[in-house]
Formats: sequence, C-alpha cells, structure tokens
Amino acid sequence: MAGNTFGSVFRLTTWGESHGPAVGGVLDGMPAGLLLDLAAVDAALARRKPRGAAGTPRREADRVEWLSGLHPDADAQGRRRSLGTPIAFLIRNENTNPGDYAALAEVYRPGHADATYQAKYGVRDFRGGGRSSARETVARVVAGALAQQLLGPEVRVRSGVARAAGISASDPMSWDWSQLEHSAVGCPDPVASAAIEAEVARRRDAGDSAGGVVYLELLGVPAGWGEPVFDKLHALLGHALLSINAVKGVEFGDGFAGADLSGSQHNDAPDEDGVVRQNREGGITGGISNGRVITARIAFKPVSSIAQEQRALGSDGAVHSLQISGRHDALVLPRALPIVEAMAALVLADAMLQQRIQQHP
Amino acid sequence: MAGNTFGSVFRLTTWGESHGPAVGGVLDGMPAGLLLDLAAVDAALARRKPRGAAGTPRREADRVEWLSGLHPDADAQGRRRSLGTPIAFLIRNENTNPGDYAALAEVYRPGHADATYQAKYGVRDFRGGGRSSARETVARVVAGALAQQLLGPEVRVRSGVARAAGISASDPMSWDWSQLEHSAVGCPDPVASAAIEAEVARRRDAGDSAGGVVYLELLGVPAGWGEPVFDKLHALLGHALLSINAVKGVEFGDGFAGADLSGSQHNDAPDEDGVVRQNREGGITGGISNGRVITARIAFKPVSSIAQEQRALGSDGAVHSLQISGRHDALVLPRALPIVEAMAALVLADAMLQQRIQQHP
Amino acid sequence: MAGNTFGSVFRLTTWGESHGPAVGGVLDGMPAGLLLDLAAVDAALARRKPRGAAGTPRREADRVEWLSGLHPDADAQGRRRSLGTPIAFLIRNENTNPGDYAALAEVYRPGHADATYQAKYGVRDFRGGGRSSARETVARVVAGALAQQLLGPEVRVRSGVARAAGISASDPMSWDWSQLEHSAVGCPDPVASAAIEAEVARRRDAGDSAGGVVYLELLGVPAGWGEPVFDKLHALLGHALLSINAVKGVEFGDGFAGADLSGSQHNDAPDEDGVVRQNREGGITGGISNGRVITARIAFKPVSSIAQEQRALGSDGAVHSLQISGRHDALVLPRALPIVEAMAALVLADAMLQQRIQQHP
Amino acid sequence: MAGNTFGSVFRLTTWGESHGPAVGGVLDGMPAGLLLDLAAVDAALARRKPRGAAGTPRREADRVEWLSGLHPDADAQGRRRSLGTPIAFLIRNENTNPGDYAALAEVYRPGHADATYQAKYGVRDFRGGGRSSARETVARVVAGALAQQLLGPEVRVRSGVARAAGISASDPMSWDWSQLEHSAVGCPDPVASAAIEAEVARRRDAGDSAGGVVYLELLGVPAGWGEPVFDKLHALLGHALLSINAVKGVEFGDGFAGADLSGSQHNDAPDEDGVVRQNREGGITGGISNGRVITARIAFKPVSSIAQEQRALGSDGAVHSLQISGRHDALVLPRALPIVEAMAALVLADAMLQQRIQQHP
Repeated sequence: MAGNTFGSVFRLTTWGESHGPAVGGVLDGMPAGLLLDLAAVDAALARRKPRGAAGTPRREADRVEWLSGLHPDADAQGRRRSLGTPIAFLIRNENTNPGDYAALAEVYRPGHADATYQAKYGVRDFRGGGRSSARETVARVVAGALAQQLLGPEVRVRSGVARAAGISASDPMSWDWSQLEHSAVGCPDPVASAAIEAEVARRRDAGDSAGGVVYLELLGVPAGWGEPVFDKLHALLGHALLSINAVKGVEFGDGFAGADLSGSQHNDAPDEDGVVRQNREGGITGGISNGRVITARIAFKPVSSIAQEQRALGSDGAVHSLQISGRHDALVLPRALPIVEAMAALVLADAMLQQRIQQHP
Repeated sequence: MAGNTFGSVFRLTTWGESHGPAVGGVLDGMPAGLLLDLAAVDAALARRKPRGAAGTPRREADRVEWLSGLHPDADAQGRRRSLGTPIAFLIRNENTNPGDYAALAEVYRPGHADATYQAKYGVRDFRGGGRSSARETVARVVAGALAQQLLGPEVRVRSGVARAAGISASDPMSWDWSQLEHSAVGCPDPVASAAIEAEVARRRDAGDSAGGVVYLELLGVPAGWGEPVFDKLHALLGHALLSINAVKGVEFGDGFAGADLSGSQHNDAPDEDGVVRQNREGGITGGISNGRVITARIAFKPVSSIAQEQRALGSDGAVHSLQISGRHDALVLPRALPIVEAMAALVLADAMLQQRIQQHP
Repeated sequence: MAGNTFGSVFRLTTWGESHGPAVGGVLDGMPAGLLLDLAAVDAALARRKPRGAAGTPRREADRVEWLSGLHPDADAQGRRRSLGTPIAFLIRNENTNPGDYAALAEVYRPGHADATYQAKYGVRDFRGGGRSSARETVARVVAGALAQQLLGPEVRVRSGVARAAGISASDPMSWDWSQLEHSAVGCPDPVASAAIEAEVARRRDAGDSAGGVVYLELLGVPAGWGEPVFDKLHALLGHALLSINAVKGVEFGDGFAGADLSGSQHNDAPDEDGVVRQNREGGITGGISNGRVITARIAFKPVSSIAQEQRALGSDGAVHSLQISGRHDALVLPRALPIVEAMAALVLADAMLQQRIQQHP
Repeated sequence: MAGNTFGSVFRLTTWGESHGPAVGGVLDGMPAGLLLDLAAVDAALARRKPRGAAGTPRREADRVEWLSGLHPDADAQGRRRSLGTPIAFLIRNENTNPGDYAALAEVYRPGHADATYQAKYGVRDFRGGGRSSARETVARVVAGALAQQLLGPEVRVRSGVARAAGISASDPMSWDWSQLEHSAVGCPDPVASAAIEAEVARRRDAGDSAGGVVYLELLGVPAGWGEPVFDKLHALLGHALLSINAVKGVEFGDGFAGADLSGSQHNDAPDEDGVVRQNREGGITGGISNGRVITARIAFKPVSSIAQEQRALGSDGAVHSLQISGRHDALVLPRALPIVEAMAALVLADAMLQQRIQQHP
C-alpha cells in the first residue's frame, strides 16, 4: 500500500517533498554489527549531483543527517556500527526557489506527474513536483550505498550510459570502466561520450532535452539469489528500476533482441570444457541468479522539463502556453547512474538476506 | 518473502509443482457481493491451452475446483457471489509423464531453472521443472479472470503478438482485433500471422524454437491509479510481467525507442483543441495512470526446451549430451497472452481498490 | 489486509468455509531440505477432534491431502523433504449437515459472528458460521505441527487447562504433564480434571456451556528471539492467541496479578549464585526472549452455542426465540490446546528464522 | 520483519534511540485532503509528559518537526491538509544525560531489555535503553493523534487507570471522565486516585515502583470493522497494546473473569425490546466490531527502574550490585494513557480504511 516502501526483509521507506523542509528515509532490516562507512555514502551522493553543462543549476549540499540505528561511537576510520535498529536519515532541502513554481499551480506540465497527482490525490504540493520530483531519489542513493556495504566487496554494482540522444556507445563488454569518471555524460566510451555531450548541448541550446539507455551490471552475485515465482530476481530488479523517474523500459541479458533468436542460439549451454561463456540470459535463469554476470539495460525517456514553449492543459480544462523557467537537466542519465546502482543494491541485499534462511541447516 | 504471493490489498498466492498432484491458488481481498461468472474463468483457461502445431502435446482438462470464498447458491446464469473471504481453487495435474523426466534428475537443462533451483534450495522436484514450470501460471489465469470481473466492463485488457521468430506484425494501432481468434500464433495481423506460423514450424522441424514480443493494452483505466514512488503503476506492471516465465524485457509507451527522442517530441502535449492525442508515455505519467490507453511491449526469449541435442552441465560438474524428449511448445507466445492479461488485471484490480481509499471523503 | 495470512518470513494463509467443500492452507517460507514427519501432523489433528461427553458429535476424518511443497519420494519412515516452495494442503469437510443451519439464515446467534459478518460483508455463508467457525483452525493445526518440526526438539510447546467452568487446577509449575492424556478436559491436575468434567457435564445437561483458562509454556527458546518495538515476541504471541475463536484475553508471566507488585518484587534479578530463578516476566523481557521459560495464560469465553432457548435478533430487526440444534461442544478448551500450541509454534518458527539474519556474520 | 512498522493500509514506522539525536516516524496511508490540526498533536504529547511526584525528572520539550506529507499552506486555524504522501516527523532528544548510563555499559538492569538486546543484536546503544526505551512511544503518540483525526469525532478513544499499586478504582461504567484531568495518576475515581497517589509516593520514597491496569474504551465504532480470522479486531488491538513497554496482559470485555461464566450468562442477547444492553463481549464478536462499546483492560508491570540496590548480571557473567541513578517514573500509567489511546486509534483507522473496500459497490 501507498508505495513508499521497497523491499521485503531489507526495506527502505522514503518520504519528503521536493520543496518541503527535507527528504529522507528509514532503512530497516540492516543486520546488527556491520561497520558502516558513512563517507562512502557521501561519495555516492556526490555522483548524483549536477555536473557541467548537462546539469540543472539547482545546487544542494546534500549533507546527510544520521538520526538513528548507528552506534554513537565511531572507529578510527570514522565508521559506525549498525545497531540492527532502523537507520533513519534526512537531507535538508536548502536551495529551493518556490517562486519558480508559482506559475505552475494551475497548469499541468506535459510529461510530468502534475495532472496525474491532481487526479490521484485531489490536492498537491505543486512546488517542484512535490514527491514526484527526482529529489526523492536522494534517499535511495543513501540507502543503496549502505546496501552495497552489506553486500560486501565481492558483489560489485556498476553502470554506464550505453546510448543517449540517439548516439550509441560501443559494446559494454569492451568498455574501459576507468574512463567513466572522465565522461561528463556518464559514458565510458570516450568517443561516444564526446558525441553525446555535443548533441545534448545542441538540444539544450535549442531549449530541448535528451534521454537514453543505461547499461547495468552486477558482478559477483552467487548462484541462488531471487525467488522463483512472482519475485524472480529480474522481476524485482525490473520493479526497482522502473520505479526510477523517467524510466520507461528495462531488459535483461539479450532482452528484446534475444526474442528474435532461436532456442539453440539463446540457450547458454556450456562450452566443451564445461565453462558457460555465453550469457544471453544475463545472469538470471528462471528468476534465480545463475552465478554469471547479471546484465540489464534501462531506457530513460528524454527530460520532460524543456525551456521551449509548449502547450499544456490547465486545471481549468483549457489549453495554456507554458514556458518552464526553473532549473533542469537536459540529460538526466549521468546523475541517474548512482540511483540505478542504489536500486540494484537494495534488491540484491534483500535477496542475499533471504537466501540465508532458504535452506534448512 | 518467498515470492509466492503477488499484490497488496488484492492478493494472489499460488502453489503447486508441475508434476505434483495439483496447482492452485488463494485470491484474497476480493470485495464481498460481486457476482462472479465462473464460466468466464474456464474460457480464459481455454485460451491458455496448447493449440495446433506450435503447441506441446501435453493436454490437461484444467478443470477448476472452487474450494472457498463463493456463496454456495448460484444464480440463473450459474454465477456465484463472492463472500469477501479467500477464494481458494485448485486444478489437478492429470496428464503427467514423470518418466519423461527421469533422465533429467542429474542433468541441468540449458535455459531452464534446473541448476539455479538446485543452487537455491539444495533439493528439488526435477519432474517437469517443479514450480518453475509454466504450469504454475494456470493459477494466475484463474485469478486474473476474476480480477477482470472486479474491474468491470469499462476496463478492458487485451494483448496480441507483435513480433515472433524475427517477424514483425503491423503497428498494433492498426490491428483488427477480431482477427486474433483466427491466428494460430496469437497475432491479429493475418499476413504476419501466416509468416510467423511458417517460420515457427520450420524451426520446430529443425528441433528448434522461437520467442517474440507481446503487445499489451489496457483501455478504460481512469486517471489516478498507481502509487507515485516505488509502486508506480508501470513498475508494478513490469514486476508482474517480468515474473512470467521466459519474459526478459518490458517497455511502456515508446519505451526504448522513445529514449532517442527529444523532450519536445516525447512530451504528450495537448493539441490545440485541448485533446491529448499523442501517447508516447503509454498512458502512465509519473507512475500514475493519466486516463489514456496504457500500452506495453513484453519480450519473451525463445523456448528453452528444444529437441536438438545440446551440451548441458550435470550435477557431477561434467558436460553431458542432452536430448530433451518431453512435450514442449515451439512458440509459447499464443498461450502466454492470457497470462499476460491475467497479470495486468491483477495489478489493475489492486490499484483500483487502493485508489478507493486514497482521498478523504 | 484481509487477515487470512499470519506471519512474516514463515507465513500461513488459510481458506475455507465450515460447510464448504474443504478447508486448507498454504504455508510459505519453510526452508528447503527439512525432513517432515506427516504422521505427526495427523497426531496433532487427532488431539483437536471431539472427545467424550464434552465434545460435539460432528465427526470428521480430517485426512490431510498434501498438494505441494514436498518431495514426492518418502524415506523409510514415510517422511518427505520440504522443497522450499509453498506447502499447500486441504482437508475435506465431510460431515456437514447444512439442514442444521437452515433456521439460522435470518437469525443471528448471540455470541457468534453472524450479525457482525453480515455487517462486514453484506452477504455470508450462514451454514455453520462459514469462515468464523472453529473448523478453520484445522489448517492452523496442520501448519503448527510443521512449524514445530522446524523448531526442532530443543524447543517444546505445551499447554493444559488451568481453569475451567470456574474451577482452578493446581499451579502449573507443579503439574505432572504425563497426566494430560488421561484428562477428558485437558487438565493435568487429576482432581481438578474430575471436578471440571463433572461441572461441564452438569452445564451441558442444563443446555449450557463453559469457558476457562489455558496455560501455555514454551521451553528451550534461546535468548534473542522477537523484535523489540511493535513485534515484541509477546505481542506476536498475543496476536496469534487472540486470533483463536473464543479467546478474550491473554497474559504473560505474572500478567494481571503482577501489576500489583512493586518493581523490587517483579524484577527477575539473579540469585547470589548468578542464576535467575524467578520468572515473573514469563521468559520475555523488552519483547525479546530472555532464555527462561515463556509462560502465558489464555482466557476463553464460554461456548456460545447452547441448547437452551435464547432471545436473538433477526435480520428483520425483530427479536426471535432461538433454539440451536446443531452439534456443539460444551467446553472447547481440550480441543483448543493443539490450536494454542500451533499458533505459538508458528510465531516461534517465524522469530527463529528472522533471528538467523539479525546479526552480521 | 524487524518490527518497526505497524499497520496494513494505514501504517506507522518509527525509528530512534532514546539518547540518539532524535526519535521520529513515518505515517503512510493517510488519505489526501484531510485537514489536520497539528495543535491537537501537541496536546496529546503534553499528556505523555511527566507530571508531579510520580514522574521522571527528565523533561523534554517534545516539539514536533513536520518534515513531509502536509500542504505548506495552513488555514486560518493553523490546520494543514494531508497530501496523501508519507507524513514524516521527528522530535529531538534534548535532555539527555549519557553520563547517567556509563555505569550500565556492562551491567544488565533487571526487568529491562539490556541483556536481551545484547543477545539479539550482539551490539547495543546502552544509553537510556536505546530503542527499548519508552522514549520511542513519542512517535506513536504523534501518529495516534493524526489517526484520531482521520477517525473523526464520531469515534472516541479514551482510557483511565482502573487499578494501580494494588488499589482498584470504581467500576469504569460509573466513572465521571471529567475527573480524569484532576488526577495525578490518571484515575477518574477521585477516592482511588488519592489512595493510589499516596501508595505510589510511599513506594517511591522506599526506592520502589508500581504497576497497574488501564481501562480502555472505544466509542462510536460502527459494526463491521476488523478482519475475521488472524486479524480479528481484538487480536490487532491486543498486538498493538502488548507492544507498549511494560504491558504484560490484555483482555477484552469480561476477559478472564468472563471465562468462569456459562454461555447463557455470557451471550450478549437482546432484551425483550430488541436492544442489546449487556456487553460482556466488549463490543467485538467473532473478531468484528458489533456496534457496541469496545472495552479492554491492559496490565502494566511495575516500573523496572528502581532506586533500591539490586543484584544484576554483568556482561562478564558475574553478579553485580546495581543502583540505578537516572531519572525514572515510579508509576508509568498516567503517561501511558495517551500511548494506549494512540495505539488503539492506529488500529481503528486501519480497520476503517480497510472496511471501505470490503464490499462491492
């Protein structure tokens, strides 16, 4: 109900409106006694901040206030031990310009949840999209960074931009991931990165925006995670990823392209030496991890907030001319990477804990 | 936990192994007093049965035994009123040939959940895939047919094959849906249907199989359904659809293709007369239904059970030569349509009930 | 929602009306690989059957049909291994006399859920109380017997009648539990047992009935089970026990009597040798098991179905004279013992599994 | 899991350690558009504060910081409209004296959750009991005050002390509830109130403490609330009440005393005029509200923190002599009344919302 909680035995509840006093969350189910590196959370948040020309000018300090669930004493590295109780945290909204939104009280922005929130609730906090704003994802990134620590160093979660503004990067299998940090658009392929950056700048200058596809891979997941029927591991990942703002599609392994193949091509059979090298399934068979790399591709629609003048419906039922001022990204993908990774880490941590009680000792 | 239950206030739990005595389910949360047409459930099940050359020769009567939750007295049309208590039902597994599977006790079929079940549980009922078999989906179709009745005639759920074995049908917007019943492969485009049927037959004769893409549309859903954060309506639909056997991807509205567009193209702005005709969003904005048609495309990998000889790993870690005898579909899509529709109806019924208590009177 | 499911990671869903075709359940979350003794389930069910003069003449075979979740092969002792998938089962209702209830279609029996079901649902299956009948508890006993096996022999759950028809047994600390099987009324104190039996017979002859108090103890529960805030171990046990038909109160340790003591008396401090012998807390401190015996007392109201003529309201709003024919117990407590124990075992098994993932390895 | 969340469609999650930076909660499922009087929340919190000689000297401002879920604009009376999104709030812990607890790092206080937390988590924040402290209940009172507003003025929740320190008040049916505010010990019977106050003072002076019994009544609940099987209305209320610190028992209607009666006495049959005046059931039949007053009695053990010297076990396994300094109530009941009422209101609000979708329109 209500959909502000995600997870089963490892569970995140988020709260907060974009332009309210704060956003935050409660992470319940973290086992007791884990030494948590809170600086790593800050690093994850830093990745979510706007960068360069593609980003919104809204700048937030995004300082996490830890409210509960951590032992008061920190170790020499500043790490604090989980108490097994709910880890609550908040991040203040500091850089809010409600004035930007006054014009939007009675006009529904195309592509945004304005009209649908109004239909759903009959009332809304129109400033900054309220809870439909990507501002809510700050809480996901915080929780995801803790989930990653619970997973431990064996399980690695990483993502990059595989396509944006209609420009494709090279095959992710060939990526040099160390290039990711040098890309302003989150793409480890330098050539594609430059082309995407140029095309996004061009669209931005034209008052327009772009979308794209994120490639996600989960390494080191042992065989056996995920539940076999409704909560197949890729169904939970799909749920998690589709819950991110602007995501309109998700596919695992060969996904839509694999649907054209024949069974003899698609089946990931072992080579003669008994090693399974093909991975069209994307690391999940029958809803359960098979021990190979889990791969997914996630489609983001182009950013809905554009500077161009648009037609828009008003609460009066009439057509209005709308020009959005505010502060908005022309391409959301680079900032979406830590959110994608956070959601994946939350799913994996939940699956890992559940698998611990799956077999009778 | 365990992942055998789906839904929030309208909730289905399924149980049963493919070659155990029966499969069944418990549907909880059906409001009391609804007249339920049980013959409509049989009709939905009939659509799930194998047909023609593309289908498995396993034939099941699929007679539903209603165990609880229905008033004992039927009306003149044979309909029975829901009691508001759990509706339990079962379908016997009658046509099981455990002998078919004896060879599979110690060899893991590529593309199947054999090895992953073993990794997860340490024990399994290897006959027919146990619970990973599509046999489990019988229970989903039963519950989905009841969900559809709760939704009422205003909300229509329908689906067809948009692409299979590498052959695309015409744009679903142009489909004559009345042609669907004449297609052996679930495709309302007669030309594509014939081509798909031929190509599937060719692959079947070669001991191979096919996959494809199903198009789903949900008509008559009013604005306001779905929850805005983790349980966005398309995230729940995605979860539901990805939980169907062999599904590897799902997209809503323009999905992956829409990621290439600019915001000015993708935003579904009103025409000058105030009517929104464009529907790139696919009927859902910000996770909430916007009153337009909800559209989705679902990718199914090719059927994993193929007659060709394959390499396969055994429980002994060695490579074996495997030839699957059993009884299997070469294309699962036509039988998957009622399953797709059932899962969609379950999500919608749950969202409808939740929306009833969303606003203060 | 709907309240037909109990438990968190170890979860029972029950279904079935008293006079419908069957009652049953789905037990989800049983770890895979546990050898389950199904004969022990039958033994638990046998304890729930009516006995002697105090019992209803309705006789049911109560044969469990196992539908899923168990490996098809049994070992030499007839035990079958859990598959980790949902364990579904049903018990047919064979000895139903719907005729007994025809008179009750429009008259609400005092003490029964007839009027309240009508208010809640607007429709009901009036035969035998439908789902409010104690018949539903058959499914609980089945699941509880499996839960007991998951708990293992270290954890023992036992209960006896501490008071009935106004007659108290001796202090349970002094009971010779081996006497329990010789008591027709479930009371291990032979003197009290005889007195209770006589008083219940007297009331039965007068067309009346009795209630009483059940003493429950849980031995061998290690320290650390239970959740500290809303799901305190005794809050979950209380929930479980109050959900049994006719239960109107529950207390743990010294309970209501302990409220009169001072803190210095009530605190279970160690003796000088460091052993804590006092147990006024009843084995739970701050909602978490403390390693001592968990003790509870459960109050059952007298049986509502009495042969005496009573006044009763009808669906027409008028007062009717009601004489219940049917088949009913004059004292429900002896048959309630296995139900009490089943609910306690379900709570403990759930707590045990959750505690396994509470601490970081 | 984890037990920090209570409720089904109306759901409270609490977080926070007693001596951490703050305690707080997230209330999810509040319908949109309800005008909420936040001053009423402050009034409920004021009732929870220590009063007079019976109370702890720890004084907290208990100022609620509203973080989300409320429309930014207040009406003339200062009320703010619910947005339908999660209502998050926190209360800072200001008056903490960690020094008081330094001695308790390695000694487990009898009656407290010190040893059991250590057993459960392997690590704990020993200052002030961490999360087992009654400090956590601040969040319950906040949420309960909002739940009461959702219930509306028709449904009234009230409670008073029926017995404390071994002294009974008159029958609650005879209470003049307006006397409650004049009692330092929460007892509307002035004679008993004075006697209780004197006895509690005597125990306090002796370095000791008291417990007692709270009477709770819920007026104006219509027939039909509550779920019939596991989530019987009194099972949910019992769960809620037993989750309050120090509660060791709960009974509904005639409870334990009613177990001695015969069925003919206990059945709440109508009088000759068709009005049901007897209420031994306590307003709930078969787990569903019957339209009469819901009554319950709740047993609180005596306060565990006493000034007297006690024996206590240490983490070293040895017996220590313990003298608790800190700041503690000698009788917790007067401050527990708003907590009891809050938990009852949370249960009722959840049941009310669920009942809205129980019948097919």
